[in-house]
Amino acid sequence: MSEVRRGPYAKTAERRQQILDAALQVFASRGYQAGSMREVARVANIQLSTLMHHFNSKEDLLLALLERRDADSPGQRTGTGDLIADVLSQARWNQTIPELIALYTVLSADSITDGHPGRDYFTERFTTVRRGFQEEFEKLRDAGRLRSGVDPRLAAGCITALWDGIQLQWLLQPDEIDVVAYLKAFLELITHPAEGTVSYQG
Amino acid sequence: MSEVRRGPYAKTAERRQQILDAALQVFASRGYQAGSMREVARVANIQLSTLMHHFNSKEDLLLALLERRDADSPGQRTGTGDLIADVLSQARWNQTIPELIALYTVLSADSITDGHPGRDYFTERFTTVRRGFQEEFEKLRDAGRLRSGVDPRLAAGCITALWDGIQLQWLLQPDEIDVVAYLKAFLELITHPAEGTVSYQG
Repeated sequence: MSEVRRGPYAKTAERRQQILDAALQVFASRGYQAGSMREVARVANIQLSTLMHHFNSKEDLLLALLERRDADSPGQRTGTGDLIADVLSQARWNQTIPELIALYTVLSADSITDGHPGRDYFTERFTTVRRGFQEEFEKLRDAGRLRSGVDPRLAAGCITALWDGIQLQWLLQPDEIDVVAYLKAFLELITHPAEGTVSYQG
Repeated sequence: MSEVRRGPYAKTAERRQQILDAALQVFASRGYQAGSMREVARVANIQLSTLMHHFNSKEDLLLALLERRDADSPGQRTGTGDLIADVLSQARWNQTIPELIALYTVLSADSITDGHPGRDYFTERFTTVRRGFQEEFEKLRDAGRLRSGVDPRLAAGCITALWDGIQLQWLLQPDEIDVVAYLKAFLELITHPAEGTVSYQG
């Protein structure tokens, strides 16, 4: 790609990021259903026509925002084998981005409403996240680190649900609710510590 | 109260229930922020002015709906001592009222958005529910039925969060997600069975 062409591409990418930042702000504070393209344009400080040039519809904007959320995630669950440390690290990172967690929380619940464009996204996401945890719990089981009697499939659904639910309570009472402590308690409940490990730092 | 006066009172109560049924339908399918008083009146098949006579504002309507939800709950957590059976019984009952669970799920997440009138309600509700579970887990601990190392406070937050989170997944995939099985798995994980009990029926 030549220097000549890089300019406008970079500009478009930058503009898209600026719009997505505005959309995040609008949807996280008002909800997706109540937020409008007009308001996103206002917050982004651009004309509605400019917004529509980059995103045809509110649905486009939502899906781009959800994709960016996934891409931005630090991806710390890399299968290094230390699942608990990875989960707690991700949970700590989430605490630094309350707007994004708020958006995710509002949208995932909103997605059960009639004709919501995010419904397929969240259905697939939950299925994928549950499956990922199940595989990781199966690995722990094979390594003799899963507590006897723990079903990897049920434990996977439990941690996925628990994580979402406790983030909602944290968003309502950030000073009261320590997300990491709850996830740590659950994970320690279903596992044996790794050899040579005394405890995980919360 | 005389027969003469009972008529209009009963009529008012009936009309209020009719309006609340319509509001439940509107808010559960569109979300609270996007649902309008006009739409509630339309679904209830009454004039907007009649609706406003019974409920001054959308906030009034929401709070009445949340109060009715609490009043309608079967209240099976009666402290009979069999917490697990009570929780699973309530979870089974919830599966018969998907609209109400959908409303609760959407509203509780919506409540984190700016200036949402349900925020105090949900903050208090979560605090109360967590405290209630904590007390029940402490009783189980005192009866020697809590697994060693389980912290009643953390376990209380975990089950409250898990229950909400798994209901959301169930609303997206009712045929895939068995709420009762996940709650049962968690409760069995943190407790020892009662004497003479082989297992709880899921």
